[in-house]
Amino acid sequence: MKASGYANNSATDKLKPFEFDRREPGPQDVVIDILYCGVCHSDIHSARNEWGHTHYPFVPGHEIIGRVRAVGNNVSRFKAGELVGVGCLVDSCRECEPCKEGLEQYCENGWTGTYGSEDKIGGTPHTHTFGGYSDKITVSERFVLRVPDNLDPAAAAPLLCAGITTYSPLKHWKVSSGQKVGIIGLGGLGHMGIKFAHAMGAHVTMITTSPAKGKDAKRLGADGVLISTDASAMTAAQGSFDFLLNTIPVGHDVNPYMGLLKLDGTMVIVGAVEALTKVSGVPFIFKRRSMAGSLIGGLPETQEMLDFCGKHNITCDIEMIDIKNINAAYDRTVKGDVKYRFVIDMGTLAN
Amino acid sequence: MKASGYANNSATDKLKPFEFDRREPGPQDVVIDILYCGVCHSDIHSARNEWGHTHYPFVPGHEIIGRVRAVGNNVSRFKAGELVGVGCLVDSCRECEPCKEGLEQYCENGWTGTYGSEDKIGGTPHTHTFGGYSDKITVSERFVLRVPDNLDPAAAAPLLCAGITTYSPLKHWKVSSGQKVGIIGLGGLGHMGIKFAHAMGAHVTMITTSPAKGKDAKRLGADGVLISTDASAMTAAQGSFDFLLNTIPVGHDVNPYMGLLKLDGTMVIVGAVEALTKVSGVPFIFKRRSMAGSLIGGLPETQEMLDFCGKHNITCDIEMIDIKNINAAYDRTVKGDVKYRFVIDMGTLAN
Repeated sequence: MKASGYANNSATDKLKPFEFDRREPGPQDVVIDILYCGVCHSDIHSARNEWGHTHYPFVPGHEIIGRVRAVGNNVSRFKAGELVGVGCLVDSCRECEPCKEGLEQYCENGWTGTYGSEDKIGGTPHTHTFGGYSDKITVSERFVLRVPDNLDPAAAAPLLCAGITTYSPLKHWKVSSGQKVGIIGLGGLGHMGIKFAHAMGAHVTMITTSPAKGKDAKRLGADGVLISTDASAMTAAQGSFDFLLNTIPVGHDVNPYMGLLKLDGTMVIVGAVEALTKVSGVPFIFKRRSMAGSLIGGLPETQEMLDFCGKHNITCDIEMIDIKNINAAYDRTVKGDVKYRFVIDMGTLAN
Repeated sequence: MKASGYANNSATDKLKPFEFDRREPGPQDVVIDILYCGVCHSDIHSARNEWGHTHYPFVPGHEIIGRVRAVGNNVSRFKAGELVGVGCLVDSCRECEPCKEGLEQYCENGWTGTYGSEDKIGGTPHTHTFGGYSDKITVSERFVLRVPDNLDPAAAAPLLCAGITTYSPLKHWKVSSGQKVGIIGLGGLGHMGIKFAHAMGAHVTMITTSPAKGKDAKRLGADGVLISTDASAMTAAQGSFDFLLNTIPVGHDVNPYMGLLKLDGTMVIVGAVEALTKVSGVPFIFKRRSMAGSLIGGLPETQEMLDFCGKHNITCDIEMIDIKNINAAYDRTVKGDVKYRFVIDMGTLAN
């Protein structure tokens, strides 16, 4: 099946139009006409080979919203015309304990990412998966999600990565009403963290280096703002948070944040895959605090997140773009110049 | 009340005989004739002012075993002649939430350490508390522990710090039968970690840089030994541990250890108050692992630990010393030349 999209051919190459094959649907497959695809910072890291394992040609995109075009004979959960989503995963071993528990993101045998992963299902001339910056995609039913009809489909796209990445730790660590929660960093992830923690009933504080971001944080649902460069405000806030969601996407000093936690509090890292600066054992030991990490979410929890968004009418704050402007959007994303996620209108691909 | 002990007067001074006052017992106080006192590495850090807040003259010692000499009028739990212990704490605010929950070690208003803390109870000419390298001590009933009669009193002394420091995290993180637990570092803390984790039914692996320690680890109860400098053994053990108790007492690289944990596994730091080297977010994020800290234990849990030791006949492996040899024992402790804890026979004080 012929598909059109955007790809690049090297770390320094720009994204440009690219024709390729999608597999014909097998019995368990869903073919999706892609309407929108979010632009995640991971797309940029991968396109530019900043993590060192990119396979070219490379088609990014793992925040996919579309309509079902066709389904295989054994597909029971979807039918043509339905609004669906695809996130970061399109396959996993389905047999290990995490997969059996619906924690496919922790598959012990290695999941298949929506882009840039070795394609174990096959059915095309390509060895690696191509992502959502394209007009259509064939995905195994298990990895397709139902999108509530009341959500704006374009603004729902980033829920598939930025949304689940922040929802999952808030749920796993049982954030709830009456708790004081801090969201560190206001970008694509952080703005969703505020919305979810607020909807879960927590008292939400935006923790940011940038006073200018405070006003917007309150619009998004934050009850308060803590400027992390304000030493006296940070001292006053020591030991006051039940939970911190740390969305900072680069290596940084976590010690000042750890001190903000109460006894037995946890800070979860969802952004920083780079090394953190020296971590002191002191804030851990003296208040039995924890630092943890969390990766996207499994398929059942991603569906739960989408249903939660439908119920609470939560979507992302986005800036829609023509796919012809994707390279400029990348540059703006790297500069942090987006509120809070670019989404590609895939209808522009045919223009 | 006159007391004798050993103290030093500066960071470079040796410990030597010292006469001082203990308070006369108030209604809630227990006066204890000290039989034995363990030698904790914290004693050395403090005597040498390595943490920068030592008040001189300084009497170390917070692993105290003795017999009740007298009790105040309102003391209900103890009577003269009983075998008792005193650990790292002799007072706390008793009113904050942690204190109400018996987590005095996390007192929000600052607990009083057995040595070197400002003495808020008073009753002596001294402003700071004096520890257990002495012939007697007056302690508020709440901070006195009952020692099971079946335990060797000398070998029970280090339970009051090394014991509870390792028991508390194993209990808090619910280590139990069927779990695979690693104890990192074989010193005073590590050797107790092995004994406790084994008694709790876990499969216990000693993780050490030193192959020579393997044999002794098995004698202490370890089921296996993992040499952390053996790259292939470390690779083979990736993702296999439910829980790691990290007793390394200095700053170190935690990244190789974090990779040993299973999905949702936790490593607890109990030794390192110095900065850890750069911590990578990757092992945290990709298996939802946690790193936490833990500080000694509260009074109820310390009693529970002593009762557990009575039931399972657990004590420490010690080397008994004459108090006149304390300065040489410090030098040997710093070199790691002790299996696994020095305990002072306080009867030697009068010689």
